[in-house]
Order: sequence, then C-alpha cells, then structure tokens
Amino acid sequence: MTLHKIAVVVLSFALGAASALAEGPYRNRDAKNPRDLGEGTYPVPYQRPTVPEITEALGRVRDYLDRVSPLRIEDRATGKEITDFSSPVKTARVDDGKAGNGIISYEMGVVYSGMLYAAKVTGDTRFADFVERRFTFIAQHLPYFRAVEAKFGYQRGDFFKAIAPRSLDDSGAMCTAVVRARLAGVGPDLQSVIDTWADWIAHKQFRLSDGTLAREHPQAQSVWADDFYMGVPALAELGHLTGERKWFDDAVQNALGMSARLYDSSTGLYTHGWSANNPDAPHFYWGRGMGWTVVAMCDLLDVLPADHPRREAVLAQLRAALRGVAQYQSGSGFWHQMIDRNDSFLETSGTAMFTYAIAHAINQGWISPVVYGPIAQAGWAALSTKIDWAGRVEGSVVATNYAGDQVYYYNRPVHFAALQGYGPMLLAGAEIIKLMQNPAFEIRFEGRTYDYVPVKGAAAPR
Amino acid sequence: MTLHKIAVVVLSFALGAASALAEGPYRNRDAKNPRDLGEGTYPVPYQRPTVPEITEALGRVRDYLDRVSPLRIEDRATGKEITDFSSPVKTARVDDGKAGNGIISYEMGVVYSGMLYAAKVTGDTRFADFVERRFTFIAQHLPYFRAVEAKFGYQRGDFFKAIAPRSLDDSGAMCTAVVRARLAGVGPDLQSVIDTWADWIAHKQFRLSDGTLAREHPQAQSVWADDFYMGVPALAELGHLTGERKWFDDAVQNALGMSARLYDSSTGLYTHGWSANNPDAPHFYWGRGMGWTVVAMCDLLDVLPADHPRREAVLAQLRAALRGVAQYQSGSGFWHQMIDRNDSFLETSGTAMFTYAIAHAINQGWISPVVYGPIAQAGWAALSTKIDWAGRVEGSVVATNYAGDQVYYYNRPVHFAALQGYGPMLLAGAEIIKLMQNPAFEIRFEGRTYDYVPVKGAAAPR
Amino acid sequence: MTLHKIAVVVLSFALGAASALAEGPYRNRDAKNPRDLGEGTYPVPYQRPTVPEITEALGRVRDYLDRVSPLRIEDRATGKEITDFSSPVKTARVDDGKAGNGIISYEMGVVYSGMLYAAKVTGDTRFADFVERRFTFIAQHLPYFRAVEAKFGYQRGDFFKAIAPRSLDDSGAMCTAVVRARLAGVGPDLQSVIDTWADWIAHKQFRLSDGTLAREHPQAQSVWADDFYMGVPALAELGHLTGERKWFDDAVQNALGMSARLYDSSTGLYTHGWSANNPDAPHFYWGRGMGWTVVAMCDLLDVLPADHPRREAVLAQLRAALRGVAQYQSGSGFWHQMIDRNDSFLETSGTAMFTYAIAHAINQGWISPVVYGPIAQAGWAALSTKIDWAGRVEGSVVATNYAGDQVYYYNRPVHFAALQGYGPMLLAGAEIIKLMQNPAFEIRFEGRTYDYVPVKGAAAPR
Repeated sequence: MTLHKIAVVVLSFALGAASALAEGPYRNRDAKNPRDLGEGTYPVPYQRPTVPEITEALGRVRDYLDRVSPLRIEDRATGKEITDFSSPVKTARVDDGKAGNGIISYEMGVVYSGMLYAAKVTGDTRFADFVERRFTFIAQHLPYFRAVEAKFGYQRGDFFKAIAPRSLDDSGAMCTAVVRARLAGVGPDLQSVIDTWADWIAHKQFRLSDGTLAREHPQAQSVWADDFYMGVPALAELGHLTGERKWFDDAVQNALGMSARLYDSSTGLYTHGWSANNPDAPHFYWGRGMGWTVVAMCDLLDVLPADHPRREAVLAQLRAALRGVAQYQSGSGFWHQMIDRNDSFLETSGTAMFTYAIAHAINQGWISPVVYGPIAQAGWAALSTKIDWAGRVEGSVVATNYAGDQVYYYNRPVHFAALQGYGPMLLAGAEIIKLMQNPAFEIRFEGRTYDYVPVKGAAAPR
Repeated sequence: MTLHKIAVVVLSFALGAASALAEGPYRNRDAKNPRDLGEGTYPVPYQRPTVPEITEALGRVRDYLDRVSPLRIEDRATGKEITDFSSPVKTARVDDGKAGNGIISYEMGVVYSGMLYAAKVTGDTRFADFVERRFTFIAQHLPYFRAVEAKFGYQRGDFFKAIAPRSLDDSGAMCTAVVRARLAGVGPDLQSVIDTWADWIAHKQFRLSDGTLAREHPQAQSVWADDFYMGVPALAELGHLTGERKWFDDAVQNALGMSARLYDSSTGLYTHGWSANNPDAPHFYWGRGMGWTVVAMCDLLDVLPADHPRREAVLAQLRAALRGVAQYQSGSGFWHQMIDRNDSFLETSGTAMFTYAIAHAINQGWISPVVYGPIAQAGWAALSTKIDWAGRVEGSVVATNYAGDQVYYYNRPVHFAALQGYGPMLLAGAEIIKLMQNPAFEIRFEGRTYDYVPVKGAAAPR
Repeated sequence: MTLHKIAVVVLSFALGAASALAEGPYRNRDAKNPRDLGEGTYPVPYQRPTVPEITEALGRVRDYLDRVSPLRIEDRATGKEITDFSSPVKTARVDDGKAGNGIISYEMGVVYSGMLYAAKVTGDTRFADFVERRFTFIAQHLPYFRAVEAKFGYQRGDFFKAIAPRSLDDSGAMCTAVVRARLAGVGPDLQSVIDTWADWIAHKQFRLSDGTLAREHPQAQSVWADDFYMGVPALAELGHLTGERKWFDDAVQNALGMSARLYDSSTGLYTHGWSANNPDAPHFYWGRGMGWTVVAMCDLLDVLPADHPRREAVLAQLRAALRGVAQYQSGSGFWHQMIDRNDSFLETSGTAMFTYAIAHAINQGWISPVVYGPIAQAGWAALSTKIDWAGRVEGSVVATNYAGDQVYYYNRPVHFAALQGYGPMLLAGAEIIKLMQNPAFEIRFEGRTYDYVPVKGAAAPR
C-alpha cells in the first residue's frame, strides 16, 4: 500500500468519516417491550441481522472499492496516463488510486475472493463484475509489463508481482483468487500467472526442513501466521484446479506444520510468529495474524478431498482454534488487536476473519450452531458498525510486522485505508447471510438472547 | 419478577437512588495517622467493619423488603384487593408490590433463608418475623388457591408454584427456606408444600442419566450453575429434616455431578451452563452463576452428616472453587459480572454470594482464616457501599439466561429491583458479623493491612 | 522510610512535580516520514535511546539523591546537629533528610549497588563518589554509634542496623553493596560490618528446615519474594569476596528453595509470599515482589562459579521467570503493579527491575537479544518518562506488605519519595547503556519496529 497516497485520501475524507458510523448505545429491535427493565442497551446492534441489510452493506463496500480503484496505467515519474502501449516505459505502473489499493496485492487477493463469494451467496453479479473487470485489465496489460521487464528488468509495482514474484505476499492470495475466478467462470484465462505464482510457492519460497513455508527476515528460520493464508489456500486451490494430490499434501503439511509452531494449546490461540532459534519466545496473539490461520484452514477444508488421510487432523485443529478464539470474544462482539489483551483496541479485520471462519464452520457442519451461532451473530453485530455510509471499512489495523514487543502491537494505527479489512468484511457478511438462511437450525429470540435450535430432519449440524 | 411493576418503582425511586450510596474514595478509618503517605485512598471502605453497622444495614434491607412486599391478594384483572375467599376467582394472585417481589419465588426463597440466618446471628427477631408473617400468609391462603386451581386449573402466579410446581426455580429455594423455618420454629406447618416441592425435585424434574438435575431448554441435556442452588440445598435440607440418607446421597450426587460438568480446574471457576451435546463449548464464567454453586456447597456441608462417605469430596470441591474465586477478586473487593473479565462491570449479587461462602467456610473451619479472612473482609467493604439509605441493594444484575455470547452477558442491566441480590446480601452480612466475632483468630491492622492471626487454644481453624 | 519527613518533601515539591515529566503521546523520532500513516503515536517514547541521554538522566537521579541525603548526625530529640562525638547521645541518629532516605537501609543498599554499576558502565566517577562519601561517613561514625549502643543499648536508627541487625531488610542489600564497593576499591574498609551482616544472614535469620530464609510474621513459616533479594545477592557476594563455596551453596539453595515455593509455572510468575501453613493460597503477583527475584538471580549468576553444580538450574529458573515476565509487559512498556492485572496501575520500580534483569541477561548472553532486546528497550522507553527534571523517580509504589487481598495491593500509593524505585532505575539505565553498546547484535529500525540482529563472529548471544 502506498502510504503517501493514503495521506491524500485522508485529507479528502477526514471530515465525512467521523459522522459516518452508526453510534451506540443500541436497543435490540427484536425486544418488543420498551418498558422491559430486563433489557438494556448494547454497544453494538445486538439483534438478528436481515439478509437485505447485510447485502446492501456489502454492496456499499463493493462500490467504494470500485470508486477508489481506477483501471489506469500511468507513468509514475509524471503521473500521466499511458495509453500508447507500443513502447515500454520503465516507470509505468498501475495507478493505485486515492486509497493506494492497486490491483495485484495480497490485500486485493482477499478482496477478489470476498467479491466472488459475495456474488455466489447473494446472486448479485455486480460483485463478480468487480473481479471480472480487474482480471480482464490484468490480462490485457500483462504483455506490456512483460515487455517493460524484458527491456528494463524487474521494477517495483503491482504487475511485477505477477511476472516475477519475490514473496508469498506477492503470490498466495492473488493465486487463490485467480484460480477461484477461473473455476467460477469469471474473467479471462490467466493460467500463465497461475503458473508463475504456483512455481514461486512450490519451489522458490524459503522453507523449513519439513517443508513448512518460512521467512529468513527479520528473524531467521521464522514462521509467520500471515503466511498460513499466503500459502495454504493457494496450494489447496491448485489441488482443486488440477486434481493433483501433491498440492493438497503440501497444503496440509503446511497447515499442520505451521500449527505445530504457532498454536498454543494452553490459550487456544496462534502467536504471530515463531523462530526455530527461539521456539520458546513470549507469544504475541495478534488478532489479524490468527485471523489468517482460521480463514486458511476453512479454505483448505472447503476443497480438501473427503478421503484425504490428514483431513481429520486439519478439522480438529480448526475446531481447537475456533474454540480458542470464541473464548476471547469481547463484550462488544469484536475481538481485540491482541486477542488475549482486553486493554488493546477493538480491531475490525481480525474480527471479520473470526466471524467469517466461525460462521463458515457452522454452515459447513464442522462446528455446532447451538454453541457458535450466537458468537458469529455477535461478531457481525460488531462488524456492521464499521461499514460507513460511503462503504469504507473502519477500524482495521494497518500493515503490521512480526515484532518483538507489545508497545509496537498496541499502538499500531487503525485506518479505513487499511485494505486488509475489506476482503474479510466481504467474506464475513456473505457467510452471515448464509447463516441467516441456513435451514439446519432456527434462530429464536428468547429470554432476551438468541438460541440456535437444530431443526430435526434438516442436514445435521452438530 | 414482573418487570412492568419494576418500571413503576424506577420512576418513584430514580432521583433518590443516585445520591443514596456513600461515595468513595475512602480513607481507612483504622489508619490513625493522617500524614502517613504510605496510606492512600480506596474505592471502598477498606477497614474493619463493626457488628453494629452491619446489623443496622441488614435491618435497612429487611425494612425495605417489608415495605415493598405487601401481604395482599388481588384480582389481577382489576387490581382490586380480594377479601372474600369464599368463592375462587380465576385471576386471583398475590400482589407483588411496587418492586415485583411476590411471596413465593426462588429469589424470595433466598431472602427467607437470609432473614432466618440474620435472625440467628444477630438475635434480632424482626428478621424472623419477616419470614413468619409471610409463611403464615401462605398457609392461610393456600386452601383458597387450591380451590382456584381445582376450579380453573393451573394459573400463572406465585401460589401455583407451591401447588403445582413446574421447575426447579419454582421449588428448590422455597423448599429450602420452608424447611429451615420449620426447623427453627418459625411460622406455621407447611409440610404439604414441602411434600409438593420435594416430589418435584426428587421425581419430576428432568435429570441426566446419572441423576444430575438438568434442563431441556434452551439447550438439550443441559446443566445450569443456577440449578446447583435450586436443587442441592433443598435435597440437603430434606435429609436434615427427615434424617433419611437418600436425600443426602442425592444432594451429594448432584453437587459432584454438576461440578464434573461445570467446573474448570484450569481456571478454578464454574461455567454458567453445560450441554451434553457440546461438552467442550467456550466457557461463560458468570458471577452469580458460580455464586449459586459455592453457596449451595456450603448449605450442603452444613447439614451433611460427618460420616457421609463423599463428604470429603464435596469439601475438596468447595475449597477448590473458593480458591478459584479468591484468585479473581477485583481491586475494589467486588467480583466482576464475568468473573474472569475485568472489563465487565462489578456485580453485587455474585460478590455477596462469594463473600458469604468464603466467610462461612472460614467460620466453619473449612478454609484458613489467615488466607481468606482479608478476602472476605474486602468483599464486605465492597458490598457495604451497595446498600443505599432506603435499604435497597444496588448493582445486582437482573435475571440472566444461559446464553451463548459475551455481548449478552456483558450488557445485562443492573438494578435495585433485581431481588437476586437481597438474599445473598443478608447472608453475607450475617456471616461477616460471625467473622468479626469469631474467637478463633484475632484481626490485626498492621502494615496498613489486615492479618487474621489464629488464637492458640481456640477452636482450630486451619 | 520516615513518612513524616515525606510529608514535608511533598509540600515542597508538589507543584513542580506535575510539570516535570515529558508527556505523551510521542512520535517515534526514528520514523523519518511525517506523512507515514503506518506510523502512529505512542504513550511512551518508542524509539532507540541514546547513551548520552540515558547517562544524563542517571546523573540527574544521582544529583537529586545527593541533594536530599545529607551527611549529618543529629539529635532526634531536638533536631540539632551533633558535632561533638566525645560523649554518646542516646537520641543521636543520621539526619535522613527531607526525603527520609537515610544512609543504611535496604533501599539505599540498592541505590549504592546502582551507583557502583552506573560508575562502571559510564566511567563517570561521580556515581562512585556518591557511594564513597557515604561509606566513609559510615566508617567515621560507627565507633560513635557503637559507644551509644554500649551505653544505652539498641536504639532505632540506621546505624544500629549495622551494629545489631534484626532482619534481612537490615542486612542483605547493604551487605551486598558494601562488598561490591570493596571489590571495586570504592570507600574505606568496612569488614566489621560485613561480618555483622554476614553473621545475621548466615546464622540468625529464621529459616525453614531446608535452609530457606523465612519470616515468622505476619504469617508463620512464610517466604517473601522480597527476601530473595535481601538474602541471595549478599550470600553470593560473600562467596565472591571470600572464595568460600559455602556461601555460594547457601545462595543457590535459597534461590531454588524460594523459587520452589513462590514460582508458579502456569503463569511464569512469582507470587509475593508463601506460607508453609497454606501452600495453596491464592497468588498475588506483585510487580516489585517479583522484581526482587529476577534481579537477585542475575546477581547470583554474575558471581557464581561456572562450575557450580546447580548453576544451570538457577539459569533455567531465571530464563523461565524472564519469559513469564516478558509475556505480561503492558502496551506502554511498563509492567502493572499486579503483573497479571491490567487494570492495576503501571508501576515504576517493578518495571525498572524487570528491564534491568532482561537487559542484563541479554548482555550476559543468557537469553536471546533477538527475542528480548525489543522488550528491554520498550521497558526503558517507559522508564525514561518517570525521571523528572529534578531527578526524582516517579511512579514507584511505597512500602508494601505481604498482604491477603487485592484491594490492598491495588490501592497502594505511588510516590517519588518511594526510594525503592531509585536503585532499580540506576541499574536499568546502566544496563540499557550496555545494551545499546553491545557489539553482539545490531539494532535495526525496520518495518516501524526494532530488530535485534545478531552480528556474525561477535561474542555469541543466543
């Protein structure tokens, strides 16, 4: 994300943003008796959400992203649009717009996956169109940027992540989205970039001796929770696309290998990072960091063959992680920036990932709706306050390093320009729509709270 | 509790209540040197309480309850008093007063037990008179309501809980109080209602296969911490009354059966509810929920024969629970609504139950005064700020369901009309009086804190 | 500490103190781009400290202590200076100055050790001069106070702690400092008081049956975390001075014996006190209490022979304790008064001891700079805000008893007159200077945080 650009967008939107969010305290609209003293107020709209209102909110997010993400090539030296693609310009790049979002990045990869999922769940093709237009734009301009690279070598800029990726951040989330678009029949054939990213993930990214995807900086031999998402879903989707077992095996090996390092069974949480040199370091339970792990496990299980010998191990690990996460939900439905620290701020992107993963696991029949339904619903109550009138997602922490002290983590800024919150918000909203429509249980408002009661004879959730 | 009635009482008392409570910060009156910079201020009156001031405060609570709990039968269709009991009126009921307290309810059951205990400890018969008048009123009007039931069938209303109970809430706490009154020679013979309630508890309430009292709603096959109190003390007192071993065995079986499901040894706390379908659900450590468990264990041990083969097991469980509770006392002497969550509000009824149970266990010689005396005393320092000038007990959470998300629990209202706080407050105050009078130890104010120092040769507490 | 005296100093300094501390929020001066929206503000100066600024701050502390700690004998009955030492006056004492600091106390013992360490690290002899002048003063006046004692018997006052000590508080920290001064060639020969203190610690202090130093009040057979420091470093330094193994064995036996009672491996923390009569009492994780333990273990390991058979056990215990401490650092770099309670106040003296111990263990190669460097640096960022313009150390909790309830611990006052914060602040500052100068790693500011990267070929820290 180009933070210089963000500065501009801040100036433009700063006044509007403050008044954009619905403000509590909220009364539960499902509680019909205004004189009921057993019913108080809530910091979030604790109530049953409706499908139309979630759909409308997701549309607002989509339209905002569309508005601030231009499809335009510019010369970054001059800022002028490039329209003549006959001769390569060294400083050509995608205009990343006022919000600095770009078109090829891990954050946008999650956005694409979120849009595809929202299209599928709502049936509204505008979500898919967002992806289609951008993937078509990528396909159209890839030859041009390949020519730039042939003439001038590797340059900084979004397209070069697709031409010569250098990290999991460059590869994984985008690869996942492109494969999904292809399987959904959205957008053009991008097999060549799939191959490039697959090659990076499979053969070029640094790994530990047991095959776990890892980093050498800032700590040697280290595993990041973030890489759970940057690695595992792409491997899983490559298996999904090709039907080849090796991809699934690698995805599972990574899911379990990373969990072995990052998951702490005493807290039920994943720490942000781990290094082979210091395996017993203090833990930093960063919300979004753990968010990546549970979304990635969902992604893996969604496509992992039912007969895979380690499927049950992955499922058990996801259940343990979701149990851990659920235990730490705050009294407002959000999770905290540091999951185990209730004096750290309430954070949107992590909350969105947890809400998605819990709701998804219920909808897939992996965990109990009785236990987890109210938790997912409360998560959405929180999230719903963070989509402003303009479709901006507020309250997500900006890019965050695997760091060594709590002062860093506690004091990271939050900003609507943190694109990391948008994809998870789309995923969470779409999954909550499915939850509200799930025929396997009834949602009853009784005793001033919500009971998820299994429906006999319906597809059996636990 | 009739919450429509509560609305009325709120309007009447709202202005007065705010100014009623003593407000901190407090200086410790036992610290005599006003210039001692090693002595700060406290959010509660951290000091040695005196017996007269506790007694006076309990009297205020008694008089308040007496004032707002009329002994009057009315026609709920018209609100008019019924004085002619010759022909049954279908809509007859006990006037439950401005505060909605009624005369037969689990909350009033605890109040009766608290009044009886305060009478015994203070020797002030006005506490027993409160019970005597109400139990006499019940005995007088039972035939009338039986006639109503014979003619019109089961109706909603307090008397029907004694005629045709339908739940542990209808039966347990009232049964306990009526047996205790009888053993203390307070009030008329109510053997017929004892039999009705005993029959419900022993034979009609749903149970798990091992005999543990349970519920089928909202979750199937579920155990509530609340039912520890609604079931175990009544069973124990029935054993006490009859001398029959079967009641004690059932009480012990329930105490240990519920503990096996609800107690988490890693935190030392009881979760609010448990379901056989989802035994590994996230835990909700609701204060009052756990409060019921420790008070009930005290009640059981008070009457369980010394030679009962599982007495030591119950005692060990109580000790473990009190150790767990003590570890979570807040810096103001209160416990939080969610015991393990210091960003949830400070709650009175749970604090009262913990303070009672800890002080009682000390006074009975079950736990160390050295360790637990200061904790009980600090609990009372907190509670003493919650009895207002009019005798109202402030800060207790209203009726609370076994729910599935923290947003519900965190945002339950507190209200002086929550009768659940009154019985525990009477119990706690009476027990602290005993603690202050206990000859087994001296309470020394030294180093600006309190040491409970065993007195050699006195009855030996640990 | 004479708290009457403190009252005076409060009146004199009260107005100045408020404006003395740099106030947040702070921007990181190492972040050069003022428009970087990925960089927020911090409650403390989260940045790389420089050696000159630490050195200057320590000098301010030294000068403040020098200013408020007169070298003067007075008649406490009249307040008048005594200059004629030919005949003993019963009420003679050292003037303990406006701040009540005195000259012989455990708090001053830590200050002397801190000054000696600051002198060694900075090369600035003024730190050693502070000690030299006071130890010379002690040596000069010892004969006089011995004459007072001979004539009038034991009196209250600093000198009598050196003549006829009655507790570990009288003996340990002073003994440690005097031995260190002697080994550093600072001050006169005080072997006679070393012998007196050594005799108390070795033979007269109450001990448990396994030799662990213990107390009989307020709880019988009790071990205090504070005594870890009051006992172990002195024993270790006596071994260091004499070369006799028995002292080391006793020091190690105490370090491990106290840890066995006070350390809880489930939290990684030391509880404040433990009694043989109630070994399973609830834990009170008081910050300074645990601070004493980790500083004392550092002190022991600094001088314990490399071939001592239990050296590895002590080292393992220190590592476990520092891992536990690190896990609880707050989001502002401080630790809380109650380490595990984030709603208790942020406390200076404990933070200083933890920061010292972590930085020292890194510098000695006992723990990883990669893991612990950022934590120590964050601790200093916090501490640096607590040295005011006048050199006063703010925010340390006053003298604190081994108590039985959280209300006591939470509500202890903090005060710049709490001398317990000064020695640890000097130690922490000096150790952070060494950390900044440590050639074994580079400190890189990257990704808006700090990486401690080992330098190949340098003395190998883990």
